[in-house]
Amino acid sequence: MLRIVGFGSGAKDNMTLEASVAIAGADLIVGYTTYVDILKQYFPDKEYYSTNMMQEKERCQYAIDTAKEGKEVVLVCSGDSGIYGMASLVYELAEDNLDIKVISGVTAASSGSACLGAPLSHDFAVISLSDCMTPWELIKKRIKAMADSDMVMCIYNPSSRRRSGYLKEACDIVLKVQSPDTVCGYVRNIGRENETTGILTLKELADFKADMFTTIYIGNSHTKVINGKMVTPRGYKVV
Amino acid sequence: MLRIVGFGSGAKDNMTLEASVAIAGADLIVGYTTYVDILKQYFPDKEYYSTNMMQEKERCQYAIDTAKEGKEVVLVCSGDSGIYGMASLVYELAEDNLDIKVISGVTAASSGSACLGAPLSHDFAVISLSDCMTPWELIKKRIKAMADSDMVMCIYNPSSRRRSGYLKEACDIVLKVQSPDTVCGYVRNIGRENETTGILTLKELADFKADMFTTIYIGNSHTKVINGKMVTPRGYKVV
Ligand SMILES: C[S@@+](CC[C@H](N)C(=O)[O-])C[C@H]1O[C@@H](n2cnc3c(N)ncnc32)[C@H](O)[C@@H]1O
Ligand SMILES: C[S@@+](CC[C@H](N)C(=O)[O-])C[C@H]1O[C@@H](n2cnc3c(N)ncnc32)[C@H](O)[C@@H]1O
Repeated sequence: MLRIVGFGSGAKDNMTLEASVAIAGADLIVGYTTYVDILKQYFPDKEYYSTNMMQEKERCQYAIDTAKEGKEVVLVCSGDSGIYGMASLVYELAEDNLDIKVISGVTAASSGSACLGAPLSHDFAVISLSDCMTPWELIKKRIKAMADSDMVMCIYNPSSRRRSGYLKEACDIVLKVQSPDTVCGYVRNIGRENETTGILTLKELADFKADMFTTIYIGNSHTKVINGKMVTPRGYKVV
Repeated sequence: MLRIVGFGSGAKDNMTLEASVAIAGADLIVGYTTYVDILKQYFPDKEYYSTNMMQEKERCQYAIDTAKEGKEVVLVCSGDSGIYGMASLVYELAEDNLDIKVISGVTAASSGSACLGAPLSHDFAVISLSDCMTPWELIKKRIKAMADSDMVMCIYNPSSRRRSGYLKEACDIVLKVQSPDTVCGYVRNIGRENETTGILTLKELADFKADMFTTIYIGNSHTKVINGKMVTPRGYKVV
């Protein structure tokens, strides 16, 4: 069986019990090197197979092939395995005779939100600034649509060496319709060493240097700062 | 100290270790009756205070007041405590001399996504159809903006007795710009008794009778069905 497991932020206690049982019971754990290094601290006696960034297809295929041999394989992703994770790629690559199970986890939007306060308490969008698989024109169109309809935005993959100006471009789109004082926030290295958070205005965010271990929050017109926390007032009905 | 804790879908193994330690160590656990009943199965020997739906303000205030007396209080929410949860309301009600910690959890978007396959693998929006705190006109505007920019949508609070026609209205807005064959899905009672999932077209979703324990997924133009699973192909760069 192949389990695609999201292990949360990287802090051991942000992992679900299901993820932790799946990892502990696996014959083989497959993942990106950085993630495997995190898990080795918590599960030192397991067998691991890791590859570098950009080799995700090869990594998924290796996990699929090993699971087909009858092994209990866990493919690990940070956060939730279904959000910019490996789950969809595995479904695309696997044939129908493989038993696949997706195990959900706490995505960076949620774990980072807890660090900042409550920025996502109402409708929000999760958007990636990576143009590897999406044209930058479509990403910009989406950002404009979010800003026009006053949605809070949570931005993944805000930057890389090649895309250093994208966050500024994104902010400039939002600045056309939202106030420069719109409350924004960032969290870097959630649940890992050197976790840092900050609250800043939209205007300041445009010049902020994010790296690829950062998640960014752009508030809507109701988002405010309460005692140093970023809070979007609720608008919901409890069930 | 007041901890606002998301306990995930309701299945014990969907809870994070941090949530479970916080609940186990609390002097008092406060929550909506349905949630408290779930937790009593897992933590039978704790002290609980529960109130009914719509009394969330009173419930938060009680949690705040008890924490101010020096008790270790946990306010519980399903899923993630920051997503249509209690975190923002607590920040709005509490004064600055209270120690508050938000503990993130697996939100319904993620736990439901794992049941369906991988519908959220790329940019998506989380939207509530509840018009208790948001004008229905704004909700419709957001749905149109998402549909126009080909975003996957994950819909919370799709229905209640009073709002039975809202999901149909939402689908009709999307149908104006997306194909009637757009792949959609629903998950009811995620991680609870009688969990049910289904994949259907956008046209069929317009006539689907959702209840308030259901989370709905509307795919984008790339979402497809692979071996009975709802899959939105990825479009991301691994970090
Ligand atoms: C390829 S995506 C993976 C997302 C992951 N599957 C999830 O659900 O959180 C990578 C992006 O997620 C965000 N991210 C993931 N883990 C993070 C962490 N521990 N701290 C801050 N941001 C994180 C960053 O924006 C990063 O660029
Ligand atoms: C007030 S919101 C609470 C959301 C919660 N804080 C979370 O992060 O999942 C209630 C809505 O969340 C969704 N939901 C929460 N728990 C669910 C479950 N176990 N199964 C299906 N949907 C659920 C439904 O759409 C429901 O109407």
